[in-house]
Amino acid sequence: MTELFQVLTPADALDRLLEGLPTIKETEEIPVQEALGRVLAANILSPAQLPTFPRSNMDGYAVRAQDTFGASDGLPAYLKVSGEVPMGQAPEVQVRPGEVVRIPTGAIIPEGADAVVMVEHTQVVDPTMIEVYRPVAPGENVVQVGEDIKHGERLLPRGHCLRPQDVGGLLGIGILTVSVVRRPRVMIIATGDEVVSPDVEPDPGQIRDINTYIIATLVLQAGGIPHPLGIIRDDYDALREAAERGIDHGDVLVVSAGSSVSTRDMTSAVIGELGKPGVLVHGVALKPGKPTILAVCRGKPAFGLPGNPVSTFVTFELFVRPALYHLVGTAPPARVTVQARLTRNIASTFGREDYVPVRLLEEEGELLAEPVYGKSNLIYILVKAHGLVVIPLDVGGLSAGQTVAVRRF
Amino acid sequence: MTELFQVLTPADALDRLLEGLPTIKETEEIPVQEALGRVLAANILSPAQLPTFPRSNMDGYAVRAQDTFGASDGLPAYLKVSGEVPMGQAPEVQVRPGEVVRIPTGAIIPEGADAVVMVEHTQVVDPTMIEVYRPVAPGENVVQVGEDIKHGERLLPRGHCLRPQDVGGLLGIGILTVSVVRRPRVMIIATGDEVVSPDVEPDPGQIRDINTYIIATLVLQAGGIPHPLGIIRDDYDALREAAERGIDHGDVLVVSAGSSVSTRDMTSAVIGELGKPGVLVHGVALKPGKPTILAVCRGKPAFGLPGNPVSTFVTFELFVRPALYHLVGTAPPARVTVQARLTRNIASTFGREDYVPVRLLEEEGELLAEPVYGKSNLIYILVKAHGLVVIPLDVGGLSAGQTVAVRRF
Repeated sequence: MTELFQVLTPADALDRLLEGLPTIKETEEIPVQEALGRVLAANILSPAQLPTFPRSNMDGYAVRAQDTFGASDGLPAYLKVSGEVPMGQAPEVQVRPGEVVRIPTGAIIPEGADAVVMVEHTQVVDPTMIEVYRPVAPGENVVQVGEDIKHGERLLPRGHCLRPQDVGGLLGIGILTVSVVRRPRVMIIATGDEVVSPDVEPDPGQIRDINTYIIATLVLQAGGIPHPLGIIRDDYDALREAAERGIDHGDVLVVSAGSSVSTRDMTSAVIGELGKPGVLVHGVALKPGKPTILAVCRGKPAFGLPGNPVSTFVTFELFVRPALYHLVGTAPPARVTVQARLTRNIASTFGREDYVPVRLLEEEGELLAEPVYGKSNLIYILVKAHGLVVIPLDVGGLSAGQTVAVRRF
Repeated sequence: MTELFQVLTPADALDRLLEGLPTIKETEEIPVQEALGRVLAANILSPAQLPTFPRSNMDGYAVRAQDTFGASDGLPAYLKVSGEVPMGQAPEVQVRPGEVVRIPTGAIIPEGADAVVMVEHTQVVDPTMIEVYRPVAPGENVVQVGEDIKHGERLLPRGHCLRPQDVGGLLGIGILTVSVVRRPRVMIIATGDEVVSPDVEPDPGQIRDINTYIIATLVLQAGGIPHPLGIIRDDYDALREAAERGIDHGDVLVVSAGSSVSTRDMTSAVIGELGKPGVLVHGVALKPGKPTILAVCRGKPAFGLPGNPVSTFVTFELFVRPALYHLVGTAPPARVTVQARLTRNIASTFGREDYVPVRLLEEEGELLAEPVYGKSNLIYILVKAHGLVVIPLDVGGLSAGQTVAVRRF
């Protein structure tokens, strides 16, 4: 039955999954200090202006600019020092014609002054008099009220993922809490009669669960909350029950679908019955990862990922990660990519996107990418690799010596 | 006094800071499942081999390879189906000459067999007989014992920062806990008579603390634990007391040194007295960030960062971040970099490294980098920007239309 599904390109498969997939509507009001990496649920408008007072941008003297016009090294302006503005306080002095007031960077421009002369352009004659060697224009070295941010200005848009400078900027204008989209809860099911928990010594024929932990940590990296539901036997009713529980209680269901055709077909059948519209994609023009299952059930994305660790990793990257960011209303951050020279040929097939794990080596100052080969279900291929090389659909292979882009992981 | 210090290039300044700076020796034994992003304190050797049994890499039939030699579409080999290997269990059958045993991907190769024929290359004649259309070589489609990992093989080196696949790989071989380097505790001091906590309504002349939160979140991103010590008045004894406390109880001290020359000089004097060797760098050929103070006191790095938010950000990136990774014995991960075309000229000066915040815009499919200008102590410059363009020491400026690398943030 599943064979009737058309094999799509990875890009088309992702489009089919995301089109019409609703985003998470629930929001949380949290302290800005804890909001690093969270996604804004609404535009943030400024409740105030910044700065709230005209501020000196230099250490120097607040002046009336016109008193400095024409000043030069040969013919300095002589101005009277009538006081000082202390940091963090309203000035008690004002600047009258022919006078200056000492001012540190960040202090309020006193009344009467309209510019600041940098201390480097002055010379103290005596405690009450300075020479000024350069003219300043009105407004020079002054940050005007509202020059940084105006009242009501949009500080950050909905869907923005908060960075360190955003956290600082919001607190700096007195915004102490923000409304962010709730993090997606990702329910993870491992399947397979041969799979046991990592803390169990496997009997002959058994292997320890790996995919639950790769998926869980990838979910964490993508801003989701992983909820492993355990290892489910290759049994239709057991898988159905666990998958129902996952789709009921989570925002996303990920089933690590086992390595044999029979368990993959069972996974597809179970996911297909969880709700409408059901399985949208079963089969992607992708290696590894061809038998990936993409579904939407009751408005929630559900994934059946092929069982071997490299496939799990590649298909998570291509489908689950973008879906997690889609759910919170933002785009996935770009991956670090480096250019490196391929050490060996890589064969591929037209019409299929290949992802090849590579090690990065430096040799005589040059970065080399060495494909990490091995049978597809070895678990240490990815551990030994530093990144992935993508061979596009319309390319039949890559040649040794060619410079390629390596997506670091 | 501080003027006697030589102005160094950013690279030389960092070298001077890191050379001889000891790494953190204390380790923690933590569950592998919680070790994502942590740095290994020791090499990890494999306690076992993987796989522990010869495993089928395909759905198909376990055979004696020689029974398939010469098989073709026209002249298939006829072989007797003598049973099946169930997943996750030791096989109860063996493969005798002329016989095959059904086997799913991942199951144990039964005694007598030395290869697996893919199901796609067979045809069922009746329940006890198949036709095989392709010969297989001995070992074909079989993962041999130890082919993935050998006993005693180094799985991961000391200093490695754990990724999702590493977490999976370690659990997959039964390693449940790892020894990692303790995360650096970073004590953060904000200075300035004009600075108030974000939850306080500033009086005229006061501004809210921003840098504590930019620094704290950058510390989190770099794997450290931020400990803000609060806002300290521009008072020598108060700063000295707080700095002593910071260097006593933390692994790193970061002082946001205020924007005026006088508070920067005070910061330098205080840091210089915290312990040997003291201030190593005071002044870097860098804009923004020239008055950066780099010190090592009693084996711990101490930083005086210039007070304006852009300087804080740039100098953290160039000096504090590499030091935090150095402390745990690893290299900082690369930043995402994109190529974009500059929309405007950027002036610079030979002999100084410039970091210019830019916005990224897409126009007709092309990525453009637009410099975000503004006086140096505006706090929203970085919020409005998407990354930094670096102008190297030996370049006098960049021209509009030039393609530049933008380091995303």
